[in-house]
Amino acid sequence: MIIILKQNPAPKQLESLKEWIKKMGLDIHESRGTQSTILGLVGDTSVVDIDLIGAMEIVETVKRIQEPYKAANRKFHPADTIVEFGGAKVGGGNFLMIAGPCSVESRPQIMKVAEQVKAAGAGALRGGAFKPRTSPYAFQGMAEDGIKLLLEAKAQTGLPIVTEIMDLSQMEVFREVDVIQVGARNMQNFLLLKELGKIRKPILLKRGFSNTIQEWLMSAEYILSGGNPHVILCERGIRTIETATRNTLDLSAIPVIKECSHLPIIVDPSHATGHAKYVRSMSLAAVAAGADGLMIEVHDNPHAALCDGQQSITPEAFHRLAKGVEIMREGLAKEQSL
Amino acid sequence: MIIILKQNPAPKQLESLKEWIKKMGLDIHESRGTQSTILGLVGDTSVVDIDLIGAMEIVETVKRIQEPYKAANRKFHPADTIVEFGGAKVGGGNFLMIAGPCSVESRPQIMKVAEQVKAAGAGALRGGAFKPRTSPYAFQGMAEDGIKLLLEAKAQTGLPIVTEIMDLSQMEVFREVDVIQVGARNMQNFLLLKELGKIRKPILLKRGFSNTIQEWLMSAEYILSGGNPHVILCERGIRTIETATRNTLDLSAIPVIKECSHLPIIVDPSHATGHAKYVRSMSLAAVAAGADGLMIEVHDNPHAALCDGQQSITPEAFHRLAKGVEIMREGLAKEQSL
Amino acid sequence: MIIILKQNPAPKQLESLKEWIKKMGLDIHESRGTQSTILGLVGDTSVVDIDLIGAMEIVETVKRIQEPYKAANRKFHPADTIVEFGGAKVGGGNFLMIAGPCSVESRPQIMKVAEQVKAAGAGALRGGAFKPRTSPYAFQGMAEDGIKLLLEAKAQTGLPIVTEIMDLSQMEVFREVDVIQVGARNMQNFLLLKELGKIRKPILLKRGFSNTIQEWLMSAEYILSGGNPHVILCERGIRTIETATRNTLDLSAIPVIKECSHLPIIVDPSHATGHAKYVRSMSLAAVAAGADGLMIEVHDNPHAALCDGQQSITPEAFHRLAKGVEIMREGLAKEQSL
Amino acid sequence: MIIILKQNPAPKQLESLKEWIKKMGLDIHESRGTQSTILGLVGDTSVVDIDLIGAMEIVETVKRIQEPYKAANRKFHPADTIVEFGGAKVGGGNFLMIAGPCSVESRPQIMKVAEQVKAAGAGALRGGAFKPRTSPYAFQGMAEDGIKLLLEAKAQTGLPIVTEIMDLSQMEVFREVDVIQVGARNMQNFLLLKELGKIRKPILLKRGFSNTIQEWLMSAEYILSGGNPHVILCERGIRTIETATRNTLDLSAIPVIKECSHLPIIVDPSHATGHAKYVRSMSLAAVAAGADGLMIEVHDNPHAALCDGQQSITPEAFHRLAKGVEIMREGLAKEQSL
Repeated sequence: MIIILKQNPAPKQLESLKEWIKKMGLDIHESRGTQSTILGLVGDTSVVDIDLIGAMEIVETVKRIQEPYKAANRKFHPADTIVEFGGAKVGGGNFLMIAGPCSVESRPQIMKVAEQVKAAGAGALRGGAFKPRTSPYAFQGMAEDGIKLLLEAKAQTGLPIVTEIMDLSQMEVFREVDVIQVGARNMQNFLLLKELGKIRKPILLKRGFSNTIQEWLMSAEYILSGGNPHVILCERGIRTIETATRNTLDLSAIPVIKECSHLPIIVDPSHATGHAKYVRSMSLAAVAAGADGLMIEVHDNPHAALCDGQQSITPEAFHRLAKGVEIMREGLAKEQSL
Repeated sequence: MIIILKQNPAPKQLESLKEWIKKMGLDIHESRGTQSTILGLVGDTSVVDIDLIGAMEIVETVKRIQEPYKAANRKFHPADTIVEFGGAKVGGGNFLMIAGPCSVESRPQIMKVAEQVKAAGAGALRGGAFKPRTSPYAFQGMAEDGIKLLLEAKAQTGLPIVTEIMDLSQMEVFREVDVIQVGARNMQNFLLLKELGKIRKPILLKRGFSNTIQEWLMSAEYILSGGNPHVILCERGIRTIETATRNTLDLSAIPVIKECSHLPIIVDPSHATGHAKYVRSMSLAAVAAGADGLMIEVHDNPHAALCDGQQSITPEAFHRLAKGVEIMREGLAKEQSL
Repeated sequence: MIIILKQNPAPKQLESLKEWIKKMGLDIHESRGTQSTILGLVGDTSVVDIDLIGAMEIVETVKRIQEPYKAANRKFHPADTIVEFGGAKVGGGNFLMIAGPCSVESRPQIMKVAEQVKAAGAGALRGGAFKPRTSPYAFQGMAEDGIKLLLEAKAQTGLPIVTEIMDLSQMEVFREVDVIQVGARNMQNFLLLKELGKIRKPILLKRGFSNTIQEWLMSAEYILSGGNPHVILCERGIRTIETATRNTLDLSAIPVIKECSHLPIIVDPSHATGHAKYVRSMSLAAVAAGADGLMIEVHDNPHAALCDGQQSITPEAFHRLAKGVEIMREGLAKEQSL
Repeated sequence: MIIILKQNPAPKQLESLKEWIKKMGLDIHESRGTQSTILGLVGDTSVVDIDLIGAMEIVETVKRIQEPYKAANRKFHPADTIVEFGGAKVGGGNFLMIAGPCSVESRPQIMKVAEQVKAAGAGALRGGAFKPRTSPYAFQGMAEDGIKLLLEAKAQTGLPIVTEIMDLSQMEVFREVDVIQVGARNMQNFLLLKELGKIRKPILLKRGFSNTIQEWLMSAEYILSGGNPHVILCERGIRTIETATRNTLDLSAIPVIKECSHLPIIVDPSHATGHAKYVRSMSLAAVAAGADGLMIEVHDNPHAALCDGQQSITPEAFHRLAKGVEIMREGLAKEQSL
């Protein structure tokens, strides 16, 4: 971190700033120029509150050189994190397909889809029980009954389940769930993240629809620094000026995350594009970009889905997609050995 | 709502669509052209799930003509809503200044600021007890102790208090708070909004930093449709490509809200701009644009604030600002009588 | 400018970097820490290409401390620039109303509107002759004939005229125009800007619809550094996620520009909001925020306008608006004397 | 196109609206409901100015059902367009690699890079002669001399050349250039587009950095409707809230374009990401997403490049990339035959 001071800073204020920095266990490297004085902070600056320094009277600007996250930082954890649950693995070369309906609608529906995605090669079953909806008048999910049905589907197929939590008051209900998903709108629900840092269950952390990669990693840091190392990142598109797709899938987030962090990253092309017709090509592109997995919405009758039917593909389409993903993964392996 | 069907829709599917629409209490106005058939839905379409229809096989596109919100809609509630609490009023011609520090830091601090903003003309005291912070390593607020100090400041000055809730598990702690603030990151925390719809306390609903005005009104709809009519909207800037200010204050939201809704709207120029130096001009502009109030961060020693000091103004600056606001309001009254 | 070097930079490369910097007339202030070496560049760094340095092998990051613009920078030109033309003045306390139709459509239309806006207090007449349109099938303006009609209107009313250039090949046609407008889409047409730097006519430089304030000032710098000091900035909204208004009017750009630059800044609420009904409140807000002027679309029959009728106000509405602006300016003067 | 009229429209205005529509060769399908009257416009609505209708007094809203572009529309031209030049082909299953330096810097540089990218399998050579730069103080390219050097490189290697035009006044200088590139900042320079519609040379049309896919196709429409069918689209990232990459590469634009248009689309991962280290993965992802080609910045000494060195890869890296692209294309072909 570099602090650029205003011209002729009040000596007393400067001393108190330096003392405060040293108390945080940091060394200071000072250099006085004709126009300005620069303080270089050496040590673990992730604990330093940059806004606090920026507000000080004698400070012109502060610039962070190092990343503000530590537990999520590849610099300090060079090896890929592998997250495991119920027989499934993701990260460090393990590719995972998570598939299932947007929301659990009935026992027959979830059983049928679970069997079908399993047969096609999915390693985990997804399904929403609590549905965050923009309108209070829209279908809000089956709630606890939905989770019970997911657990029945797990018992029958052996697939571990992934489902979204909406509030920390629901923690108890998610006790038997394999992976707790944090939705885009909750990515900065810091109280929830803290609570999820206290447990040892894998957390699927979706990127907020208008958050930067750095903010996303800071949210992962909340979970990791709490003691829970099992975080899976999920890119699901950001809000941009484009309207042809629901959101803009940011596939460059994959190499950026791979560079900055050791956490696995998967891609959700269904929510990102909002249209079933774009799911195939964006899935293949995600594989080629180096993603560790995919999360795909599959519904046995998309036109009758109670939620997000437009973006769900059929089990048949998923079956074909899974084969295509396999082919592209083989290609990528060949490319990597060049 | 207008549904444009694909060419030659399957008659059976068309019939089932029409029956389903009629079950929702809507009338259908059908018109068949050479190229496409159009269904016009007449009645209260706010209950219709537009995504559900869009996913249907026979449907080409659906377009909403009416707004998807009803309780927040000025069409159905032409008169301005006035929200009252602890002697303060906002909306319907009542202008309210809410002022105070970003976060409560100590008893002397909050007492001093409370006295000073009251003397300058503030009608309510703000102060954060629970602080949502991007970094897990930053100051997170005094929590319950902060609320106790705010209540002490209220007892001493008579100013009603406004403070932010972060999760529905905190509801009990906010029992004596006058106005519960929902922060930008929680604007679409629908479970929380539902819970706030069950009480009868005023809710200050901040706009999400990347949400449209319509989504904001849909969030207000969650509270209103739950039975709580006391909603105050607060514009606090949206995330854009501009970096000179923390966010881009969207003052055109004021006339848009005034047209579409009956709810009062206030402006927070401190968070929007992120810099104390821009607070004055943006406050005056908000007044001129027709805002019903302002929420201003005031700190007796901004350079030593534990949070957001860069955007806090001093009590002296607030005093001058309050006078300036009064002058501009007089001007606006004169303009309106032209 | 601060250059942070990678650990253990190759001595030869470091020497060649330092020599190159010195050749640009800059002094170097070097400070070696245990982890990294920092080079502080002292002098006029606006001429330094930051990307060039960032690409160098030994460089970790480069951060600009000073603004990359110089001629537009208030630091080097503390006094407000006043732009004068045809009896009109803008900047340095001079407020200017520019009004007229989106496009010149016929002699009677432009004559009538010119008379009416003059009577209401406008100081300049605007009107498009060359219209940039998204669709090749839309009305593209009257071209040279439009400019001739504007000159006739000028002859009759005495109002100087403002009209938009689309390409540098049109320079000759604009010889008698008082103020040449550069539209949002041309804000980074650098060849055009260079050409406009060679003449001595006032240039109205609109902000690009997705450009930052700094990029805008860099475009002004192209004109100023060419030798033409007569630049008027015009804020006209940026593209954001909001759809209720055509663009999002960024009024905080006014205090930011006032702080960073000496150039006058006016506001175009017609294009920014895209709706006549929001023009009044956004005009008053712009005045309160400190704008040096307004540019308003006025059409004698908005519903029959060949272009942008939705955002044009009637001459009657403009008349009332001009009075309101006057009232708010008086208020602001009073506020400033507090 | 559907026009929703206000309640009880003035009969005279309604008649004149209907007559005006009929004059454009469109049929009207009218349906009167209890609340509103709807006019359905049947025929080629791409010529209709939607803003003009929206401004009319009796109109509540207008919604476009069909796309506003026609020549670029796949509906009317189902077969893929193949663009050919100097032995190279792109589109309709033909994949093209365009490679070369950001800007032409000297004869040895361009000759060397040209030989190297040819050897690695590039089908065309790129290189900037006129460089649009944000700062007037940055290197602006070798201008005409740069084009001469490109032509020399073409003579030596046989590679056709692609280079960017900045203004229509340069048309003559580009006479011998194989493909004229229109940069992101010129995507809506409509006068230039019109001029390019008059020639028969292939045009590489980059997407504007804040333009929607529909606006991009409207710009292609300017060229196509002028009579020049040889348009290649180039996705190069859009400006979003993310800062880790220079822009956000929108790979979903590929399947969207493939669905809506018959034009070939290639991808420029160098400008999109702004970092050499992300070029490989984004190139492979573009291939997997169905792109018809790539445009890659290659420099023999990226650290000494006069422009955009950070995003240039070495000839060696390009060689490896070209092989990887080949492998992924084989994978994709296999996937498509599933």
